[in-house]
Amino acid sequence: MENFTFHSPTKIIFGKNTEQQVGNETKRHATKVLLHYGGGSIKKSGLYERVIQSLQSAGVDFVELGGVQPNPRLSLVQQGIQQCRDEGVDFILAVGGGSVIDSSKAIALGVPYKGDVWDFFAGKAQPETSLPVGVILTIPAAGSEASDSCVITNEDGWLKRGYSSQENRPVFAIMNPELTFTLPPYQTACGAADIMAHVMERYFTNTPYVDYTDRLCEATLKTIIKHVPLVLLKSDNYDARAEIMWASTLAHNDLLSTGRTGDWACHQIEHELSGIYDVPHGAGLAVVFPAWMKYVYHHDLQRFTQFAVRVWNVEQDFFDQEKTALEGIRRMEAFFQSIGLPIRLEELGIPDDRLEEMARKCRKGADGTVGNFVKLTTEDVLSILKLAK
Amino acid sequence: MENFTFHSPTKIIFGKNTEQQVGNETKRHATKVLLHYGGGSIKKSGLYERVIQSLQSAGVDFVELGGVQPNPRLSLVQQGIQQCRDEGVDFILAVGGGSVIDSSKAIALGVPYKGDVWDFFAGKAQPETSLPVGVILTIPAAGSEASDSCVITNEDGWLKRGYSSQENRPVFAIMNPELTFTLPPYQTACGAADIMAHVMERYFTNTPYVDYTDRLCEATLKTIIKHVPLVLLKSDNYDARAEIMWASTLAHNDLLSTGRTGDWACHQIEHELSGIYDVPHGAGLAVVFPAWMKYVYHHDLQRFTQFAVRVWNVEQDFFDQEKTALEGIRRMEAFFQSIGLPIRLEELGIPDDRLEEMARKCRKGADGTVGNFVKLTTEDVLSILKLAK
Repeated sequence: MENFTFHSPTKIIFGKNTEQQVGNETKRHATKVLLHYGGGSIKKSGLYERVIQSLQSAGVDFVELGGVQPNPRLSLVQQGIQQCRDEGVDFILAVGGGSVIDSSKAIALGVPYKGDVWDFFAGKAQPETSLPVGVILTIPAAGSEASDSCVITNEDGWLKRGYSSQENRPVFAIMNPELTFTLPPYQTACGAADIMAHVMERYFTNTPYVDYTDRLCEATLKTIIKHVPLVLLKSDNYDARAEIMWASTLAHNDLLSTGRTGDWACHQIEHELSGIYDVPHGAGLAVVFPAWMKYVYHHDLQRFTQFAVRVWNVEQDFFDQEKTALEGIRRMEAFFQSIGLPIRLEELGIPDDRLEEMARKCRKGADGTVGNFVKLTTEDVLSILKLAK
Repeated sequence: MENFTFHSPTKIIFGKNTEQQVGNETKRHATKVLLHYGGGSIKKSGLYERVIQSLQSAGVDFVELGGVQPNPRLSLVQQGIQQCRDEGVDFILAVGGGSVIDSSKAIALGVPYKGDVWDFFAGKAQPETSLPVGVILTIPAAGSEASDSCVITNEDGWLKRGYSSQENRPVFAIMNPELTFTLPPYQTACGAADIMAHVMERYFTNTPYVDYTDRLCEATLKTIIKHVPLVLLKSDNYDARAEIMWASTLAHNDLLSTGRTGDWACHQIEHELSGIYDVPHGAGLAVVFPAWMKYVYHHDLQRFTQFAVRVWNVEQDFFDQEKTALEGIRRMEAFFQSIGLPIRLEELGIPDDRLEEMARKCRKGADGTVGNFVKLTTEDVLSILKLAK
């Protein structure tokens, strides 16, 4: 196990009707709030009205900015920053899913910063401070409600880039599983893939002796695998929605990576897919992960065998580890398919004429490679994309 | 799953040599520190010297109070409160295990309170504020380094009572597994029983649909079961010590009870044992838990079967659930014995002449019963104590 610091101070307020607490909770932190959200879904569902009511009855002053799109855009972030400065806003309240939360985090980073907020995502600057962010979560997927990460897409070049920092952790996250009843099946499934990907990025590590966090990862994966099919059968299954929602947070608040180095190659590769083709992040991950696994499993056959046996209940073939490991990958693909996800680029509608461009653009570390479990060159990334065709 | 609030803001600083960060970390919170510790072990190990050095080089002003005993006493807490007031202390630094941390928390609660600090433990008052507490952990067991709980023994009547509140959560916990290399085997084993008990108190619940937290509990128990025998074989097995240490924190920071109501009868019963006979808390729990299980398992045979199968790898007898459940309890007893713990009152040196007194004194809720999984009357508690003979 490696040395680590783990500091996850986000206050989680979880359960039925908890959105009614937003006014009082916000009041502890804010003088004036930017209420930030996406399209019309929170208005259609009535959530918008309830939030406004709670803020008003707590006497919280606010302004609004809607219009966040999936793969949230830098231009709206910049508009939000200007609005906050003009209006004297000192708190961002995100009502929505990962895109809305990430857009809120980026605004929160940008308001007190004199330069261009993209500097943080381009690795050119580090923030000294940021505004606090609160969340009402409506989509369990990105885990942004308690994570230190934030991903924004710059329309100039369609670059999708992340910035991680302790400042990015929201001060509170209100999570009512009932708010996820209306999520369409495909979005539910994309969320599931995103959650599983957050766990698997952490699970596939070269750090030795990480038994406890291995088991916590496996517990999280098994929870998603069990409960997502249940909500696809019955969208308003509160208990199953609750299990998924809580798992989504713990999958990405860094608990599962304490003491271990994660991989993150699949996320970097997927960012190229959704950056160029604007596909749902979760769907992109369901395509990239199986291909990545097939390309790298020889690197640590034992770990892939453990994954197969413990997560996918594969009966171990003690005389053929490779067979066991490959059966685990096959079951993962079958699971993704069974919940309606694509597992090949073609199913995502992505042609194969820009694979080289994506492999080249895919963000590399200082040593020119992607990922930690196996350090992938541009050629490796291209091979993985070809395996995903 | 039930509604819940989960707020665990303690900053965990984990790994080799991390105690060197104590000066800088303390400085963020403190003007003047009370350095609080137990007997001479931290002086013998050299930890005391390193802490002093780190505080001094960070320019942190401090006073000291040693002498905390296992089952920490109210009288020392009161002495500490007076000392803090006299010296203008605004931060308590606990260097030790659960007893030192709990003594520190009680001092932190008492300093700004005008009445007797025991009021909080007697349920007569609620604190409005408390001093911040920081921790360097030397014994993985109580989980007090990130928990909201605090248990103190009042020598007047030998009452051992807990008080839980969000104020009790330390602001930081420095955890270096190397500091636990010198723990004697018996103390290591007692710690293991305490950790397992924290998980099992949460695991045995009547709350339906708690699949994710069930799995997180099982992951934690399996980690302890695997790694404690390894450190008993080789005391300086860093990796195994690290797994145990991290598990001890997560076992009791309330993550594992999110959305579910725990039981806590065994803790209440054990408090009577260690309150009167001053036995180690973990050893007391190793005696009480098996007896409690044998008394209550019919209440939810399915849950005890799951416990047996998933935690103790019992092969399920699909035609005889009771047999499976009892085999789980038997394996737990065998495990406790294998790591050198008592599993009967007699082995603890506790005679059977005061069982009725303990059953009577055992702290009851408003309805006159103990525990939630099964609500135990005084007679039930007596029956359990008799089963533990």
